[in-house]
Amino acid sequence: MSQSPLINKLVDALRCLPGVGPKSAQRIAFHILERDRDGARRLSASLLDAVDNIKHCSSCRTFSETDICTLCASSSRIRTQLCIVESPADVLAIEQSNSFKGLYFVLMGHLSPIDGIGPEDIGLDILASRLDNEQIDEVIIATNPTVEGEVTAHYISELAHSRNIRATRLAHGIPIGGELEYVDSGTLSHAFSGRRDI
Amino acid sequence: MSQSPLINKLVDALRCLPGVGPKSAQRIAFHILERDRDGARRLSASLLDAVDNIKHCSSCRTFSETDICTLCASSSRIRTQLCIVESPADVLAIEQSNSFKGLYFVLMGHLSPIDGIGPEDIGLDILASRLDNEQIDEVIIATNPTVEGEVTAHYISELAHSRNIRATRLAHGIPIGGELEYVDSGTLSHAFSGRRDI
Repeated sequence: MSQSPLINKLVDALRCLPGVGPKSAQRIAFHILERDRDGARRLSASLLDAVDNIKHCSSCRTFSETDICTLCASSSRIRTQLCIVESPADVLAIEQSNSFKGLYFVLMGHLSPIDGIGPEDIGLDILASRLDNEQIDEVIIATNPTVEGEVTAHYISELAHSRNIRATRLAHGIPIGGELEYVDSGTLSHAFSGRRDI
Repeated sequence: MSQSPLINKLVDALRCLPGVGPKSAQRIAFHILERDRDGARRLSASLLDAVDNIKHCSSCRTFSETDICTLCASSSRIRTQLCIVESPADVLAIEQSNSFKGLYFVLMGHLSPIDGIGPEDIGLDILASRLDNEQIDEVIIATNPTVEGEVTAHYISELAHSRNIRATRLAHGIPIGGELEYVDSGTLSHAFSGRRDI
């Protein structure tokens, strides 16, 4: 504990950052005070601005400061394909890969009955009404390959099938650039069952 | 780059934190927005409060929101011993070890002519006037065992000696709990030349 209550308060507050323990919070506090007070002022303003103004897009649920996010509002996207992801970070990753030009739907989580997270908590009611009211041909399910992600994927595929909409799942297999020797057996068995003719 | 300018601004601002690159800044931003908006609000307020109100103690130069820091103002400290350290974090470390009950003087750096950091930049004029005007019997020099730290230590020892004040340097040697096998040769040679009768 420092002799200064203000420094102690700052060290405590810094612990809201993921992966920051007491020792690194202290290091960060001293660094900011010694070297970058302007940066700290900018960060303070940005934090407040972000938490006050960033809400969820009413169409795809991703983070957005406008009612409809720029992706959903864009006229250059293919509006018949909908890619379902768990988080806004997934949207970014897919956008960076340049492999998809349709629209997104962000669950902000996954089904997890054990934690009391049901379909409405991840916006599946909103998704269902979009499937009913929009001209969507294909739902590409890109939830994580975890137990919860698979359960969520299954649930969404039912939503699509019951409306005669095609549902697809991203392929799972050996990552490009990976060495077979180091690939885990779950991924390998996925790669075998998903093998394709060449 | 996210689709939201506010998120991009937050990600940029987070990069003022030491060791935070673009990828972890993005992870932190999403974590805050998804899970801990209250924490972000507190952090925003604390940052501003700290950079606005934390100045330097006019007696020992450490961080303090009051003109004289609580350590310098304390009546229970031995006022004839002055421990010289490079940074406020060093004060914390020494206080935690419970091995010193005197006063501190914090250089907020070290002499480094190559970077244009001279005696006045690290407050050695203030230190000299304290040595002149206060009843100080011993100056304990605890600068880091680096080239710059040693040069600074040497300079301070001259300040003390010219006023007939005892100057001491923290002992360097094998760390407690360390294994001899893994101690670097510089430390070992220090340990040999500083050996003591038992």
